Amino acid sequence: MEIFTIKEDILSRNNERAKEVRALLDEKGVFYVNLMSSPGAGKTTVLSKLIPRLSDDFRIGVIEADLDSDKDALTVERETGAKVIQIHTAGACHITCQMSLEALEALGTDGLDLIFLENVGNLVCPAEFDTGSDMNLVLLSVPEGDDKPLKYPLMFEVADAVAVTKLDVAEIFDFSFDNAVKNIKKRNENAEIFFTCAVNGKGIDELEQYIRNKAVKKIRKD
Amino acid sequence: MEIFTIKEDILSRNNERAKEVRALLDEKGVFYVNLMSSPGAGKTTVLSKLIPRLSDDFRIGVIEADLDSDKDALTVERETGAKVIQIHTAGACHITCQMSLEALEALGTDGLDLIFLENVGNLVCPAEFDTGSDMNLVLLSVPEGDDKPLKYPLMFEVADAVAVTKLDVAEIFDFSFDNAVKNIKKRNENAEIFFTCAVNGKGIDELEQYIRNKAVKKIRKD
Repeated sequence: MEIFTIKEDILSRNNERAKEVRALLDEKGVFYVNLMSSPGAGKTTVLSKLIPRLSDDFRIGVIEADLDSDKDALTVERETGAKVIQIHTAGACHITCQMSLEALEALGTDGLDLIFLENVGNLVCPAEFDTGSDMNLVLLSVPEGDDKPLKYPLMFEVADAVAVTKLDVAEIFDFSFDNAVKNIKKRNENAEIFFTCAVNGKGIDELEQYIRNKAVKKIRKD
Repeated sequence: MEIFTIKEDILSRNNERAKEVRALLDEKGVFYVNLMSSPGAGKTTVLSKLIPRLSDDFRIGVIEADLDSDKDALTVERETGAKVIQIHTAGACHITCQMSLEALEALGTDGLDLIFLENVGNLVCPAEFDTGSDMNLVLLSVPEGDDKPLKYPLMFEVADAVAVTKLDVAEIFDFSFDNAVKNIKKRNENAEIFFTCAVNGKGIDELEQYIRNKAVKKIRKD
């Protein structure tokens, strides 16, 4: 009971802070994408494929969040040339909006149009904490199975878009596209769904176009 | 700062409760295995392979923990005939020892020798909460990548044994066994490591033998 009360308080403070972050990013004309998934679902790889396609038209920054290691930050920096920072969460399983704000300040929003936050690999906790992002992009990798939206409801409820990744191994893992769509839609009728493969490039252009359109719409409006 | 203080308190109470659970299970002569991994790493499949190999010699119970759905419980029940219950965590990302105790009471420990807890699929939070188990068995699936122990330190620090799963796709995913062992050992020099594949059965006998030996040692001693 105590835990629940405390958590409610944390979440309501977090939501207040998210409004501040959105106001800041609106003022700066920055589009902010919160990328979430299980560990190893392909967040870093998807970023490495998306950013080169977007970097002619947007000045891009990346926040890499992990409990430890700077491997992903080094990979994204090397493969995309984007401005990247690594943050360590001191054991935390998610990024709160306060952490998101501090990371944005550490990265620096001046001179950037598009910022990706690669959240901690976790299909539960990051979904509870609004980071102040303009878009929640959730990855579901084929090897995890098409049933994951049934077991991890909130992550798919908060998703604006879901990209199924590692499409090239769908046959090996007996992954059903129909079931995946049905299970995602069960949680969130409005989620956009993309089927992608970093190896053969399938679906990456469509995902890029979706992010591009949303980013342009926001940045132009501001 | 507040959050941290609260968490410390929760954890110290949890550790006290874990002692009670261990005393109860010692008295009952039950060996209790806490199975943890990322979503979709193969917990349910590994259980479905292990239990039939162990059920001639042990009376087996299974606690399936998920945020939602009863899919895994139905699968394990159908494929193994073990006594299975499903618990839902009401959104929680891990099993506390209090939840573990309530689940053991719901399952009933009388007439059982070996109980598996399939924890919530999450490579972060379940590692923080001692469930009162005799063994923490952690799965690392090949598609997640050999670098996961670098990014999720605590899970591998608390593991008694790590089973690498989905070995049959190691080539497709450019998974290095040497790096996996090196990264696991970096976190935990004493972890036993198994390389397994549910499709071709590789490594399952060795993992079964390891659990069998530990269980027999405890049950006989009591």
